[in-house]
Amino acid sequence: MKLTRFLPVARGDEPADLLLRNAQVIDVFTGEITEADVAIAEDTIVGVGLTYDADEEIDLQGRYICPGLIDAHVHIESSMATPPYFARAVLPRGTTTVVTDPHEIANVAGADGISYMLDVSKGLPLTVLVNLPSCVPATHMATAGAELTADDLVQLADMPRVVGLAEFMNVPGLVLGDPQALAKIEAFRDDVIDGHSPELSGKWLQAYVGAGPGSDHECTTPEEMMEKLRLGMYVFLREATGAKNLRDLLPAVTRENSRRCGFCTDDRHPSDLLDEGHVDYLLRVAIAEGLDPITAIRMATLNVAEWFRLHDRGAIAPGRRADLVVFSELDDFHAEMVFAGGQLAARQGKPVGKWPVPSVDASAVRGTVNVDWKALSFAVPVPDVRTEVVEARVIGLVPDQIVTRHLVKQIPVRNGQAVSDVDRDILKLAVVERHRGTGNVGLGFVHGLGLRQGALAGSVGHDAHNLIVAGCDDGSMMTAARAVGKLGGGLVAAVDDRVLAQVPLPVGGLMSDQPLETIRRQMDELVGTARDLGSPLHDPLITLGFLALEVIPSLKLTDQGLVDVEAFDFVPLFVDVG
Amino acid sequence: MKLTRFLPVARGDEPADLLLRNAQVIDVFTGEITEADVAIAEDTIVGVGLTYDADEEIDLQGRYICPGLIDAHVHIESSMATPPYFARAVLPRGTTTVVTDPHEIANVAGADGISYMLDVSKGLPLTVLVNLPSCVPATHMATAGAELTADDLVQLADMPRVVGLAEFMNVPGLVLGDPQALAKIEAFRDDVIDGHSPELSGKWLQAYVGAGPGSDHECTTPEEMMEKLRLGMYVFLREATGAKNLRDLLPAVTRENSRRCGFCTDDRHPSDLLDEGHVDYLLRVAIAEGLDPITAIRMATLNVAEWFRLHDRGAIAPGRRADLVVFSELDDFHAEMVFAGGQLAARQGKPVGKWPVPSVDASAVRGTVNVDWKALSFAVPVPDVRTEVVEARVIGLVPDQIVTRHLVKQIPVRNGQAVSDVDRDILKLAVVERHRGTGNVGLGFVHGLGLRQGALAGSVGHDAHNLIVAGCDDGSMMTAARAVGKLGGGLVAAVDDRVLAQVPLPVGGLMSDQPLETIRRQMDELVGTARDLGSPLHDPLITLGFLALEVIPSLKLTDQGLVDVEAFDFVPLFVDVG
Repeated sequence: MKLTRFLPVARGDEPADLLLRNAQVIDVFTGEITEADVAIAEDTIVGVGLTYDADEEIDLQGRYICPGLIDAHVHIESSMATPPYFARAVLPRGTTTVVTDPHEIANVAGADGISYMLDVSKGLPLTVLVNLPSCVPATHMATAGAELTADDLVQLADMPRVVGLAEFMNVPGLVLGDPQALAKIEAFRDDVIDGHSPELSGKWLQAYVGAGPGSDHECTTPEEMMEKLRLGMYVFLREATGAKNLRDLLPAVTRENSRRCGFCTDDRHPSDLLDEGHVDYLLRVAIAEGLDPITAIRMATLNVAEWFRLHDRGAIAPGRRADLVVFSELDDFHAEMVFAGGQLAARQGKPVGKWPVPSVDASAVRGTVNVDWKALSFAVPVPDVRTEVVEARVIGLVPDQIVTRHLVKQIPVRNGQAVSDVDRDILKLAVVERHRGTGNVGLGFVHGLGLRQGALAGSVGHDAHNLIVAGCDDGSMMTAARAVGKLGGGLVAAVDDRVLAQVPLPVGGLMSDQPLETIRRQMDELVGTARDLGSPLHDPLITLGFLALEVIPSLKLTDQGLVDVEAFDFVPLFVDVG
Repeated sequence: MKLTRFLPVARGDEPADLLLRNAQVIDVFTGEITEADVAIAEDTIVGVGLTYDADEEIDLQGRYICPGLIDAHVHIESSMATPPYFARAVLPRGTTTVVTDPHEIANVAGADGISYMLDVSKGLPLTVLVNLPSCVPATHMATAGAELTADDLVQLADMPRVVGLAEFMNVPGLVLGDPQALAKIEAFRDDVIDGHSPELSGKWLQAYVGAGPGSDHECTTPEEMMEKLRLGMYVFLREATGAKNLRDLLPAVTRENSRRCGFCTDDRHPSDLLDEGHVDYLLRVAIAEGLDPITAIRMATLNVAEWFRLHDRGAIAPGRRADLVVFSELDDFHAEMVFAGGQLAARQGKPVGKWPVPSVDASAVRGTVNVDWKALSFAVPVPDVRTEVVEARVIGLVPDQIVTRHLVKQIPVRNGQAVSDVDRDILKLAVVERHRGTGNVGLGFVHGLGLRQGALAGSVGHDAHNLIVAGCDDGSMMTAARAVGKLGGGLVAAVDDRVLAQVPLPVGGLMSDQPLETIRRQMDELVGTARDLGSPLHDPLITLGFLALEVIPSLKLTDQGLVDVEAFDFVPLFVDVG
């Protein structure tokens, strides 16, 4: 707000817009809880601890009030909801700012995808800040929809709400001084650069930290966390759907080091967001595990604001943005009222008031499934048509993990083609390039998906997000794949020529245009169908979506072929071509 | 340093330049003390906690090593030494970075004075950062040598080593929304703005903090400090020569709020710098008073670096500037070795190694005493030449304070002129405009200086730094004043036509061109002479230098006349003109 309005209100010469009376204010600066009123004008806190005249008063009757929670690192795409619906799910739980890395949509639609995320989140009560994806594409062993060079990123850096460079995943590139990696780092030298260095230690970690990335959210052990804290990294304790590290790391948080710690959710799927929560869930867990509540709230607010240099928020003080959460129990944090930019935006877990509906040009993120269906084939011809069986590399699923095993198995041959062997749970897997119409199809086999019939297909396939299909027979696979195409992106289960269940994800093939509750219902139905088809996995579609991620060990399949991740190179499907 | 050199050294593929072995590292991030080696290449720390090959090794034999100390707010001019000699005095004591506010030289020479301070400190082992003076001149009731508008400040903001806007002293201007005050604040909205709000409290403080200034170094009580911390201000505990607040404030520092606290020296005179020390002295006092040593070191390093957004220093970690202090006793901090930018720059309290001697164009800050001596007169004619006595307003000194009392006294008249009355300790006081040759002379009387004969004169006269002269007779005053002019600035004691002692301050009339030890010797001699002349004051020349400061109560004299500070207006010298 303008100082010409702020000053007379703060001085007490003009009334405030809103006075929150009888609050117990969580003072993240001093660690105190003070009984105080909070005065607000427009989107800004004007006074704390003094009574002001105001046009409206709300008596908080001794409830606590803390700054709005900040998620230090999140991929909104993982919620499968667009930012407006994501906001409606997380803000009522107390999150008023997220730093999102639009890495997924950028792999589909490049800079246009990032612009879409900024446009569609403009003016929301939830402040959506963007940290630019640093590694698009992840490698050149997969065909993504776009590439972002250092120059591209610099151009994006000037857009409003862009804060810096997101998780710098190309650790060897940076540590070994790859010119493109250095160009990105140098371009963001004066900005925030988030790190991404799972299990990195010793001299390589020193090189990595010293070169620029100053935070990490990939710690899995207290020892790893302490090593990183000692070198000056901020550590964000993560509790994602697929990577639950919070409880493991909490013992490493001390009074003395907590100022360098924060929370992040990274990737949380619809059911976890709805059933457990967002940053509020991490707060509850941390406090239940014994962390001092004020320390925990500081980690969810001021500390993250300090790391991202967000000097306008993260605390309850004059001049700061009036993002506030009212709650009743220190040891069971549940947002009862959430104020965003001075407006009551949620009450008792539900959005209230007017939320803008951003009207944006979504053409760049619609219709992103570009496949020549007539030319598509899942046939896997073998070198010698006379054989009845062939030895092949097979991706071995590890339940609930995104790493895989590198297996070698006998595959049956029918009419000169290697085919699925349902009884041995060896199913055909295809990754179909879907961005540029190259016609690339990577073909292979997967063990552990457990389907007894039919096929699953989806346009969510980290990180290049090509079309991934797995199934018992080529016909079912084609039905599922085409259904994804027809949806313009989505997740599908099919048997023969029948589509049994589907989750439309028309936005980039990654996000629905429906509320999170709808997505969750559709997902539940789809997962139920996959179970009916025989899959024992907790979430077979999500698991499928990581089989193309060529930077996570051990054996992965991209549209360009099978990748031995440890060797960082392609390997042939068949072991013995003799 | 360049990443292409940093990375191979940090990885361990190329040798470091220097390895500090067997150190006990003060880890300001985690609050731990760790036994570790510190590897350095060029000006940068490359590795901490691991052993590296290095071209040179120093075995610290278990001594402590902490980051170089940072002074959050200092007027180098108050040391009366130029930055190179100031650096030689403070760096050997562990200070490796100062944020200086060149407020004094700017009042003499404007932007050129600030440029001089930057130029003359370029390349020193001591990093001299400049916070731009926000209030030049302090008011329009005195004639300073320059004026700095918001536009002027913006132009200066782009110079290297400029960090933001210094102590924003115009509290009513800002709180009441004066357009020029707002213009300055708006111009530095995205930068660091230091505050200056002695005893400010309540709604005005809320308005002040919310409008921009985010730090304060003027707290004098724990209550004031807590109120400011709660509103989000960083508080710098000050121990200046004329304002000793450290011991009073230390009880307010807690584990929970200490991250928002730091240290500053503001104004320390030569003898205090040499006898007590600089930031190291504040550290010793704080620790002696019971503050946890690690907390104290954090306050002197990381916390201040965070406030000023100096992400390249304030901690011992890879990629940070190798500013390091080696010491032996946690509870009696004395720097034994000081590394600045990777180079050993001081040992056992003495500078070592090559210190650059900046060669600069000092023409803008030389020859700044511009007075038409022939036209100068200290005569104070009275309205009625027939009276023998006249009633006048007299400035009443308060020993060791810069506030004065507003007295009314009988002044003797000789030959139609009001004159000094030595027996009653009422001496004539003159403030001679010395920048622009306006011929302005403010005339009045002072009680409490105590001279029995002779006169004192000086070109240090806060904040406009006009020539201040006080004495028993006009002849002595003229001798002293002319001697200051002859020196091109300085402090002088004279009797009749004899100069008894002098401290040349040819740089802006504020700073010597000699080492601090020389200045101190000259000052001791001058003060001794003033004592011989009858003054009982601890430091009569310093006291004299504040008699023109028209923003500190109650009665002051500028080149334009007597100022009633509470009324914020001029008042006549004679009470009864009848």
